[in-house]
Amino acid sequence: MTQLKNDRFLKALLREPVDATPVWMMRQAGRYLPEYRETRAQAGDFLSLCKNKELACEVTIQPLERYDLDAAILFSDILTIPDAMGLGLYFETGEGPRFKKVIRTEQDVASLKVVNTASDLSYVTDAVTEIHGALSGRVPLIGFSGSPWTLATYMVEGGSSKDFRHIKAMMYREPETLHALLNVLADSVIDYLNAQIDAGAQAVQIFDTWGGNLSDQAYLDFSLAYMQKIVAGLKTEARGLRVPSIVFTKGGGLWLDQIADCGANALGLDWTMNIGRARSMVGDRVALQGNMDPSVLYAKPDQIKAEVARILRDFGAGNGHVFNLGHGIHQFVDPAAPKVFVDAVHELSAQYHV
Amino acid sequence: MTQLKNDRFLKALLREPVDATPVWMMRQAGRYLPEYRETRAQAGDFLSLCKNKELACEVTIQPLERYDLDAAILFSDILTIPDAMGLGLYFETGEGPRFKKVIRTEQDVASLKVVNTASDLSYVTDAVTEIHGALSGRVPLIGFSGSPWTLATYMVEGGSSKDFRHIKAMMYREPETLHALLNVLADSVIDYLNAQIDAGAQAVQIFDTWGGNLSDQAYLDFSLAYMQKIVAGLKTEARGLRVPSIVFTKGGGLWLDQIADCGANALGLDWTMNIGRARSMVGDRVALQGNMDPSVLYAKPDQIKAEVARILRDFGAGNGHVFNLGHGIHQFVDPAAPKVFVDAVHELSAQYHV
Repeated sequence: MTQLKNDRFLKALLREPVDATPVWMMRQAGRYLPEYRETRAQAGDFLSLCKNKELACEVTIQPLERYDLDAAILFSDILTIPDAMGLGLYFETGEGPRFKKVIRTEQDVASLKVVNTASDLSYVTDAVTEIHGALSGRVPLIGFSGSPWTLATYMVEGGSSKDFRHIKAMMYREPETLHALLNVLADSVIDYLNAQIDAGAQAVQIFDTWGGNLSDQAYLDFSLAYMQKIVAGLKTEARGLRVPSIVFTKGGGLWLDQIADCGANALGLDWTMNIGRARSMVGDRVALQGNMDPSVLYAKPDQIKAEVARILRDFGAGNGHVFNLGHGIHQFVDPAAPKVFVDAVHELSAQYHV
Repeated sequence: MTQLKNDRFLKALLREPVDATPVWMMRQAGRYLPEYRETRAQAGDFLSLCKNKELACEVTIQPLERYDLDAAILFSDILTIPDAMGLGLYFETGEGPRFKKVIRTEQDVASLKVVNTASDLSYVTDAVTEIHGALSGRVPLIGFSGSPWTLATYMVEGGSSKDFRHIKAMMYREPETLHALLNVLADSVIDYLNAQIDAGAQAVQIFDTWGGNLSDQAYLDFSLAYMQKIVAGLKTEARGLRVPSIVFTKGGGLWLDQIADCGANALGLDWTMNIGRARSMVGDRVALQGNMDPSVLYAKPDQIKAEVARILRDFGAGNGHVFNLGHGIHQFVDPAAPKVFVDAVHELSAQYHV
């Protein structure tokens, strides 16, 4: 078993003491890095990059060479499971992900291919193993999956959506059909994340990108309930270490109280809610991960530092904070900015961990 | 002075007793109606329709002929002010609004044309007068404007945006430039709404479509503060009647407590927050307008009625509720559905007004 050289991230997720607040960035292996764009060009396209374990490993580690990040995150796509279910994932330039087949009826749901993670998604677990090995204990590796609701939006709409017309129609007209789909997805996500944990993931995050578009009770019934099911089915220990889980609903500020009870160790926060207010709502139930507006990285170094200082101050002293952006880093950010950001988190947070 | 035959809407905004909960729908004059599509085809394009007072009046009244709505809303575009400032508004098919000129620098802001509402926007006030006359007291007429923040997003980005890259960069790098722009916009919106009130608008709504994308304090400083300034500058009486104001921030659920203190009579709610919870947060400070998910109109009649009943029950007995969708009605809704919705609001709400 490789000794972990930097375990700040895992400790913070478990609300244990650390010397400085750990930090990573959602989408940290991404288009804002010239070296990423080069590797991606070499791979040919995005999906080929995800499916090549050496190149996926290379881009996962690239941001760690530039910045003093406290965690790496598996480079992969959010839609691997629906693809493995036979929907035919592809990417149109400038259009985002698309599926060749869409799911609209009870019959469509019933005819979904049952995913066998070990065979259908071995390219992901192979990449996890490759990255875990290459990291060699430098920082922990995060595995991830989309939430059932978020995966379902793409499967029913056939791609990205502004109004979620088809899945909302399904939800309001035929809620049982949608529940059947979400149940199948939740079971697949459990298998998928556990396979990532077995392969070397040391923490896992569930990305619920579109949960915030649901009304009140619908969020609880169609998104949170299935994330709760997943968390309950996750392995919580591997290689002698606890494996914490993070649930991140973008736009989930109205449901923090309920999310805090879903069983996950940490709750991801987008940038819309003050983190001090969030902390007072969730209390000691979960750690918080977040929550700087990714657009702050367009600001000048002093302004970035001031915003980091503000968020650290709002969170206050004590355990249970992983610093992050409130959403993925934008592709047009100057690669010099994340260095200012990451270093500021470490430098300015030490005073809160004495 | 024409006597108002149905004043439920105005009374509810002022939290006075009514016999049934009033209801209207954002974007009720819109593409889901075949008669709207016909008039629009006759006008040629969207902007020509806005600029033709007879046709704008015709489409404003069309939904009232089909549904028992308690208010009409001026048919116009949200971006009339930036267009009058010289930015050159146009529409690309399927792309939404675009501006020929964008605002990116202090110099750009300083060189904006000062809007003279009486001359530059007379096509809007003429339409208000035309519609007010045609309504002849049937229901009140709502005037509206975009919020300064929302208008600014289009002016700085040059159109719709997913990440608000340019305006967020301006906000974090050069906050004073953005404040200067927002101040100019707030002054123009005050003139614009007061001119609509003079011309016949009996209530006004400020649409803050993109405020919910701001972080915590940034929402208060860059969006709410300017809406507060506008509300303070609005005429509150015309033609012997009070003219209530409504502030609607889509995704504003985290700031209800602050919005309730901005001086407006009512607060528009999108569908993400439970209206009972919102009511307990705002108390007696404002009326609430909302908040059914527009996608519920894709459901079957009984399901639509059940959702109406649920929202009425969650709001509970007492004054101060205007029923609405949480955002504009979708273009693919069957025109039969709004009838079920509107009639259900009236029928099912009577029990809460005894």
